[in-house]
Amino acid sequence: MNFKPLGDRVLVEPAKDDKQEIGGIIIPDSAQEKSQQGEVIALGTGGKDDNGNDKPFNVKVGDTVLLPKYGGTEIKLEGTTYQILREDDILGVVNK
Amino acid sequence: MNFKPLGDRVLVEPAKDDKQEIGGIIIPDSAQEKSQQGEVIALGTGGKDDNGNDKPFNVKVGDTVLLPKYGGTEIKLEGTTYQILREDDILGVVNK
Amino acid sequence: MNFKPLGDRVLVEPAKDDKQEIGGIIIPDSAQEKSQQGEVIALGTGGKDDNGNDKPFNVKVGDTVLLPKYGGTEIKLEGTTYQILREDDILGVVNK
Amino acid sequence: MNFKPLGDRVLVEPAKDDKQEIGGIIIPDSAQEKSQQGEVIALGTGGKDDNGNDKPFNVKVGDTVLLPKYGGTEIKLEGTTYQILREDDILGVVNK
Amino acid sequence: MNFKPLGDRVLVEPAKDDKQEIGGIIIPDSAQEKSQQGEVIALGTGGKDDNGNDKPFNVKVGDTVLLPKYGGTEIKLEGTTYQILREDDILGVVNK
Amino acid sequence: MNFKPLGDRVLVEPAKDDKQEIGGIIIPDSAQEKSQQGEVIALGTGGKDDNGNDKPFNVKVGDTVLLPKYGGTEIKLEGTTYQILREDDILGVVNK
Amino acid sequence: MNFKPLGDRVLVEPAKDDKQEIGGIIIPDSAQEKSQQGEVIALGTGGKDDNGNDKPFNVKVGDTVLLPKYGGTEIKLEGTTYQILREDDILGVVNK
Repeated sequence: MNFKPLGDRVLVEPAKDDKQEIGGIIIPDSAQEKSQQGEVIALGTGGKDDNGNDKPFNVKVGDTVLLPKYGGTEIKLEGTTYQILREDDILGVVNK
Repeated sequence: MNFKPLGDRVLVEPAKDDKQEIGGIIIPDSAQEKSQQGEVIALGTGGKDDNGNDKPFNVKVGDTVLLPKYGGTEIKLEGTTYQILREDDILGVVNK
Repeated sequence: MNFKPLGDRVLVEPAKDDKQEIGGIIIPDSAQEKSQQGEVIALGTGGKDDNGNDKPFNVKVGDTVLLPKYGGTEIKLEGTTYQILREDDILGVVNK
Repeated sequence: MNFKPLGDRVLVEPAKDDKQEIGGIIIPDSAQEKSQQGEVIALGTGGKDDNGNDKPFNVKVGDTVLLPKYGGTEIKLEGTTYQILREDDILGVVNK
Repeated sequence: MNFKPLGDRVLVEPAKDDKQEIGGIIIPDSAQEKSQQGEVIALGTGGKDDNGNDKPFNVKVGDTVLLPKYGGTEIKLEGTTYQILREDDILGVVNK
Repeated sequence: MNFKPLGDRVLVEPAKDDKQEIGGIIIPDSAQEKSQQGEVIALGTGGKDDNGNDKPFNVKVGDTVLLPKYGGTEIKLEGTTYQILREDDILGVVNK
Repeated sequence: MNFKPLGDRVLVEPAKDDKQEIGGIIIPDSAQEKSQQGEVIALGTGGKDDNGNDKPFNVKVGDTVLLPKYGGTEIKLEGTTYQILREDDILGVVNK
């Protein structure tokens, strides 16, 4: 992967399953929303807590995560669409 | 349960009782609102207080909780609809 | 009482006096507002101050309190309507 | 007085002078605004500063204070109309 | 002066020069704005910094100050119109 | 200069070059925006960081600075138009 | 480079590739948005963390960075268009 997110950001590749069902979780269909699952591709350089200490990531590369309906930025890398978002905005991890 | 919420989030399965009355609490009917009770299914990886210390959850798996009218995100898991929300947004616990 | 508010929330049973006059305080009538008195029924699990220390409640079960015109959430419990609100939103205590 | 404000709130009885001139201060007339003077009737249970220490009141019962144009909540007590507001919203004290 | 502002507020008497030019500073004319100079008449009881320590005033009674275009509250005292505003909102001091 | 800005404010004299090009930097023309360069004329009485310590200015009198498109207040002093703005809003320093 | 950004700002020269594809990342085309890549030209004088300590930059001069869709200010320097933005707003670094 030739992209390193900055700070507490995470690069996620959204799932391509048309039915939005991977690992058993189905997201309600909504034309206005972009909530979906995805795979963590890269972690950022690291965030800081309120005391200036390093804040370790709770997700790791390869995790399937649930993305929020709003937030994050869409980018394309070598033909693939990704989401960049702050880790705190990720709803949770799907244990496959 | 194959889903782990991140941070101070809690996964709640809303009650399916049409009358919205479980444990004796009835929520006023409102077409625009989604306030209801639910059962705590999974706790998050844990939140932090303002000093960076771990903040223990005040709810536990199996608790019947009262959900706020606004807030939270709806997801589906193996055919069941859940709410993911931050613990601080939960109004209280119903003692059955 | 089979309901425990979370955090710094307080469960209040609003006064049922049609004239909105209990303990000598009369609230101006307004169709759009829900300001009124009520009795404290249950205190929450407890709030924290900015330093992470426990913040004791200034109201106690049985107090007659003055509710703000806006804020709080209405719930029903065994046929009775209550307000759940954060203690800091309570205006004051009526000494009967 | 049978009412105790909570926290850093103050109970003030607005002046009844139609001309809005007490102690020499005249408030510009405005149909949309409720700025006026009043007498401090009761102090709250006490506020806290950002370090969790008690924050003493700068006004005392009996002071004539200048109320802001916006903010505060109007209540009636035994036929008298009062304002409840946080002390920080009071503009100043009139020295008669 | 029979008025004491509360906290970090300052009482300022706006300049009455129709041309809005005192001490060499001319404020651009704007029907919607109230930017102007004034003389400091009274300092408040004192503000606190983020650590709870006293924050001394940077202006003193008698200073000619430049008022912001927005903010502050207009009051009348014995026939004179004043502005009450927080010291941090004052733009600067004119050295005559 | 007979004007002293308060706190972390800086007094800047905007460049009068009609082409908006001084020191090699050209600002895109926009009828709605006021972005431009200027010379620092006076520094404020000094700001404080979040710990209450003095925060030294990063600009000095005589610096050519790049002003943001929005923010700041325009004043006139002895016939010259200035901008007063907080130092943190200055974009950078042009090294001539 | 004759321009020094202030604080935690970074000067970035946006890529001129019409196809918006440098280093393999393609940004979705949108008439209303200005998301794109760019090269870091100059770092600011340095930011501070919440404890007042220096906060080192995570990007360096020469890095290819991904700019957010919103935020930052456009300036021209000797005929070239740049973006000035705070480092925290940069999405990530492209490793070529």
